[in-house]
Amino acid sequence: MGDVRSVAGRDLGERDEGPELLPPPPALLAAPGYVARRLHHAYTAVWVRHVDPLLTGPQFAVLTAVDAYPGVEQGSLARAVALDRSTMGSIVRRLEDRGFITRVRPPEDGRKRLLHLTEAGGEMLRVADRRARELDRLLMRDIDAETQDILLTRLNGIAEHWESLVED
Amino acid sequence: MGDVRSVAGRDLGERDEGPELLPPPPALLAAPGYVARRLHHAYTAVWVRHVDPLLTGPQFAVLTAVDAYPGVEQGSLARAVALDRSTMGSIVRRLEDRGFITRVRPPEDGRKRLLHLTEAGGEMLRVADRRARELDRLLMRDIDAETQDILLTRLNGIAEHWESLVED
Repeated sequence: MGDVRSVAGRDLGERDEGPELLPPPPALLAAPGYVARRLHHAYTAVWVRHVDPLLTGPQFAVLTAVDAYPGVEQGSLARAVALDRSTMGSIVRRLEDRGFITRVRPPEDGRKRLLHLTEAGGEMLRVADRRARELDRLLMRDIDAETQDILLTRLNGIAEHWESLVED
Repeated sequence: MGDVRSVAGRDLGERDEGPELLPPPPALLAAPGYVARRLHHAYTAVWVRHVDPLLTGPQFAVLTAVDAYPGVEQGSLARAVALDRSTMGSIVRRLEDRGFITRVRPPEDGRKRLLHLTEAGGEMLRVADRRARELDRLLMRDIDAETQDILLTRLNGIAEHWESLVED
C-alpha cells in the first residue's frame, strides 16, 4: 500500500509545521460503528466549545429526561438517555451536588430514588437547551427541516434495532 | 407533565421485577447530539458481545488505519480514526504491548513514531474484521446495500462538517 510519507510528498521542513491530516481509510468510512463514533466524537468536540461550560451532553440529556418524566425512578432512566446504569448514577450524583436535581427515597421502597428538577435545575436546563438548539441549527444548517426529521427518525430506528440486539 | 409512576399504572409488585423502560423524551429524539451518542452507545454494547474479546472498537479502527497507511506518523492518525491525540497514544501503546504494531523512531526526527502492523497484528485485524463485518450485516440487515451507502456517505459528510467547526 506504499509509505504514506512518500505519498504525502512533503519535505521534513513542511511536516514540522504539524501533523498532516489523513482522510479516514475507506474500510472505516463504510463501517457503521466507526461512523457512529465519529459523529459522537465530533459532536462532543463542538459541544465543549458551545455548551459544556454549563453542562456536559450526558448531564443535559439527564436533565431533559427528568424534566420530561418528573418523579421518575433513577433506574428507569438510563436506557432512555443512552447511558449505562453506573455512568447514569455518577451523573445523577453530580447533578444533585450542583443543586439541579433532588433524589427522594419513597417511603414504600427505600432502594429507589425518585428524581425531580430543582428550580435551579429547571433554569439551567432552559439556558443549556437554548444554547444546544443554537448549536444544532449551526450543525444542521445545510439540511432542511424535513430531511432532518427523516434522517433523525431513521437513525433513532437504527439505534432501537441495535439496542434490541443487546437485550436478546 | 404528571408523575411517571401513575402514568405507568403499575403496582409496586410489578415494578419490583425490574425498572420499567421509558422511551427517550421527544426533545432528545430530535437532538442530533443525543442521536449520535445513542448510536455510538448501542453499537459499543453490541460490539462488546461480538468482537470485543479480541479488540475494542477504537483499537480496531487504529489497526485498520495503520494497515491502510503503513509507516504513518502516529500524530497524523488521530483525526482519521476519530480519537483525540491522548486517547490515540494510549491505544497505540496498548497495541504495541500486545505485539500488534511496532513504533519506529525515524533517525531524522526522534520525536516522531512511525507505525507498522506486525504479522500478529495483521492476523488479528483479519479475524476482527471478519467478525465486525458479520456484526454489521446483522446491524444493517433491514437496509439494502445502496441505501446503506447513501446513509453512511451522508453521515460522514455531516461528521466532516462538524469536525470543520472545531478547527475554525
